[in-house]
Amino acid sequence: MTIPVLNIIEACRKASSKMANKDTPLILNEWYVAAFKDEIGRELLARKILNKRVVMYRTVEGAPIALEDRCAHRSFPLSKSHLDGDHIVCGYHGFKYNYTGDLVEIPSQSKCPHGIGIKNYKLAETGPLVWIWLGDQNLADESKIPQLPWLENPDWACTSGYFFHPGNYVSMHENLMDLTHLTFLHADTIGTPDYASAPYKTELKEGHYKLIREVVPTTLSPVWGETTGLAGKNTAARIAASEFLSPGLHQVSVKFYDSALDEQTRETYKIHTAHILTPETNNTMHYFIVHGRDFALDDEHIESFMHEQLFAAFQEDVVGLGALEEVLDDRDEQHFEISVASDSPAVATRIYLKKRAEQEQM
Amino acid sequence: MTIPVLNIIEACRKASSKMANKDTPLILNEWYVAAFKDEIGRELLARKILNKRVVMYRTVEGAPIALEDRCAHRSFPLSKSHLDGDHIVCGYHGFKYNYTGDLVEIPSQSKCPHGIGIKNYKLAETGPLVWIWLGDQNLADESKIPQLPWLENPDWACTSGYFFHPGNYVSMHENLMDLTHLTFLHADTIGTPDYASAPYKTELKEGHYKLIREVVPTTLSPVWGETTGLAGKNTAARIAASEFLSPGLHQVSVKFYDSALDEQTRETYKIHTAHILTPETNNTMHYFIVHGRDFALDDEHIESFMHEQLFAAFQEDVVGLGALEEVLDDRDEQHFEISVASDSPAVATRIYLKKRAEQEQM
Amino acid sequence: MTIPVLNIIEACRKASSKMANKDTPLILNEWYVAAFKDEIGRELLARKILNKRVVMYRTVEGAPIALEDRCAHRSFPLSKSHLDGDHIVCGYHGFKYNYTGDLVEIPSQSKCPHGIGIKNYKLAETGPLVWIWLGDQNLADESKIPQLPWLENPDWACTSGYFFHPGNYVSMHENLMDLTHLTFLHADTIGTPDYASAPYKTELKEGHYKLIREVVPTTLSPVWGETTGLAGKNTAARIAASEFLSPGLHQVSVKFYDSALDEQTRETYKIHTAHILTPETNNTMHYFIVHGRDFALDDEHIESFMHEQLFAAFQEDVVGLGALEEVLDDRDEQHFEISVASDSPAVATRIYLKKRAEQEQM
Repeated sequence: MTIPVLNIIEACRKASSKMANKDTPLILNEWYVAAFKDEIGRELLARKILNKRVVMYRTVEGAPIALEDRCAHRSFPLSKSHLDGDHIVCGYHGFKYNYTGDLVEIPSQSKCPHGIGIKNYKLAETGPLVWIWLGDQNLADESKIPQLPWLENPDWACTSGYFFHPGNYVSMHENLMDLTHLTFLHADTIGTPDYASAPYKTELKEGHYKLIREVVPTTLSPVWGETTGLAGKNTAARIAASEFLSPGLHQVSVKFYDSALDEQTRETYKIHTAHILTPETNNTMHYFIVHGRDFALDDEHIESFMHEQLFAAFQEDVVGLGALEEVLDDRDEQHFEISVASDSPAVATRIYLKKRAEQEQM
Repeated sequence: MTIPVLNIIEACRKASSKMANKDTPLILNEWYVAAFKDEIGRELLARKILNKRVVMYRTVEGAPIALEDRCAHRSFPLSKSHLDGDHIVCGYHGFKYNYTGDLVEIPSQSKCPHGIGIKNYKLAETGPLVWIWLGDQNLADESKIPQLPWLENPDWACTSGYFFHPGNYVSMHENLMDLTHLTFLHADTIGTPDYASAPYKTELKEGHYKLIREVVPTTLSPVWGETTGLAGKNTAARIAASEFLSPGLHQVSVKFYDSALDEQTRETYKIHTAHILTPETNNTMHYFIVHGRDFALDDEHIESFMHEQLFAAFQEDVVGLGALEEVLDDRDEQHFEISVASDSPAVATRIYLKKRAEQEQM
Repeated sequence: MTIPVLNIIEACRKASSKMANKDTPLILNEWYVAAFKDEIGRELLARKILNKRVVMYRTVEGAPIALEDRCAHRSFPLSKSHLDGDHIVCGYHGFKYNYTGDLVEIPSQSKCPHGIGIKNYKLAETGPLVWIWLGDQNLADESKIPQLPWLENPDWACTSGYFFHPGNYVSMHENLMDLTHLTFLHADTIGTPDYASAPYKTELKEGHYKLIREVVPTTLSPVWGETTGLAGKNTAARIAASEFLSPGLHQVSVKFYDSALDEQTRETYKIHTAHILTPETNNTMHYFIVHGRDFALDDEHIESFMHEQLFAAFQEDVVGLGALEEVLDDRDEQHFEISVASDSPAVATRIYLKKRAEQEQM
């Protein structure tokens, strides 16, 4: 047995102390996805985000609304309630609020006091996503919503899904940033043995961290091989970029081609995956995923095959990181973690998340 | 969005700070219902009340007994045990106690030490109810048990039920005191749209708080309309009084009649409901209910219809206040609650409960 | 009601303050059974012991290995992983460790740093048991593993079983030390009414506590009567010794004979039960049991009958002490426990466990 000598452990702990982990306060002043567009309608949708209870619905005209899910009177959850036109009526004593959160009617009395209400949170829709700002409403700036143009590009076809994830969002960011794990955690689905040891380069800009891995030549796993026609070739190329775009968003972009062919004539197949991480609490997460491709746009068979294979792989992340979460829950004073070279963008991400969280605590 | 301005919130918080809530210590020196009479017999009944584990049984002659549910030796629960005549024998090492809680036999030794035992709690039976006093036994005064004479009056017919309620007893008192909620929480069962806005008056005496609501003219919901013969009339009267009688008891009394008829000749139908609130812990409650009527005494069909309808409504309270409890569990430093005019008896009740609790902590 | 007068309660509390209970820190520097021999193989076995996560397997040559169940990199549980020969490969990013816990390969880089690894815990096999030492590895001394020679003696036949026990190990030691409880907790299985009041003697040596109980003459319960041929006789003898051998081991030894027969000619039947207590946490326990007999060695019917009867009785301990645990979880400032004469070896055991735990905290 060779556990690390004490000075290595101390150095590891010192390094980790600057990185966010599951105990780091959540970052409030940020855009997060609250729901897929079609989840919000005339039925009340309750969701806890960043430890806050939120109720969402659409006005008669279709505008998405997010309010604090708690009546100002006796804290009854407004989501166990009903709409009256654009107003929400508490299911307990009938206190009625307009869609900006102002109390406008109290059934047991003729006059309604002014200046009473509940919080209204800014929402913004981009493509299939509805973003929410739960921090200081004066700081909500829609121009800062991360852009994913392929989501609305007619040359791309997308499918989407949702997992409730029993783990923290920091570990999920780290998982996504180091796709070395494809070889191991996803050995049965999207990973291949050569993936982990392929060369990579990193780009570290404040708030934007990227790792690009070039697996050339390789053999593609069925989800890519069978859908691109590169199945069976051992000359395939798989160029994957993992990008941290914001505390609530990570994008994976991959292109595939046959490296044996000439650059001018060969066909290139591209995919994007938006991994949308919306913390529910420090220990749980809403995990929205949108996957897009720029090929076989109208092929339903390819679409359903690809969706099935990929979401089986994402399920492996959910299960694996759920198991990790239990170990993290049991951390004691002897705990430490060791980082290696390929962790640099993940470490940068965690340092950034910690800094953002600390800025809000000041 | 108009959340209340800061000085309003501060005023709300100051007001709330004087009212009991789910964190307020439970009141020990009080009579609470421990069980329905027929629940206690020669089988041991375990129940946690006010955070105390209690085991109950009847002596051979039928006297109800309540003892601490914990052997003095190694804390084994005596409810997992058996009776030997009037004695209770621990199921672990056979320590035997008489019904006053004195240890009278230790099987492993011939002599039993004196002066050792477990707590015996005073019980008192009134009608179908068995009351317990878990505080200072010297203060237990049976004359202070709240009286519900209709429970034993042959001119009244009663049915009863029990819910284990996943919520605190303070919120349940408040729920019962403001029947405005009938229009909303019970819209599908016993409520009508006009109930919430009907005129009311309040009576606030120290330890006895009352709200009387007169809904005239009205249309009765089926549970009252079909059982009194007033169904279909829009001239019905519904005069309801909600009364806080003790920390463990709330009574609702309602009379119904046809307001279009002459006071001398019209028939009046009365009901009482005893809402019996026995805290199990600060967050959970035993909810015993007895409902009585002074009409259709021998009509089994009316009895079962009324029971079914009413207990469906009480179930709505259990579900609704269970949902409320989850919001209350999530209160943070930004939490506040706003009270309105019709809350005055509920607020008085909560101030009284808080004062009672504080007196015991001195 | 006579609850103990205050000075008795104070004396009880003072006495208890020297005894281990469920809140006492667990003792690390000790041998505990980690698993039955046949549980450890080429499949990874995860088990939490003394609050530590451990993964166990066998090398290709069959040597048992125990490692910390946490990758040094990002804490992924190695038990959700796979073996590569004698090496264990993390299921997340493929970090590879040899069986001593040294990190030997990082797939994403060509060079593996030296001096990094995870904890390796010493194991030792005796008969069907695999012992683990989780404390200071320099103190692990195999000569201190408690000896149970009958386990490997061909003149004895054994069966074994495992319970996950929802209770603390201190209460289980106490349970085993005072077999008075056979009359009550095991009234339906292995107990007889005269057991609790039979004469006993005790032997109290530092770290080795014993209670011997002689039940003569008696009638044997079916598990012994029917298997020894002494069924129906009221002249049977049952001489039982309960021995605390270590924090992780208690042995019960019983001999049976017909006391009406001459000592020279009568036959004696002996059994041993190893009650193996391996704390998982302060509130839960791995309960391994091996039962041996020196008679009817090849009688399969007797073996299965005896096993079934005994393990039904041990299940009663698990259920009973599980119920006790809930009471202990609810202890408040008024809690106390009273000890009696036959508790002396149990009390000595608990004082010893507390002393051992305190020594480690220094």
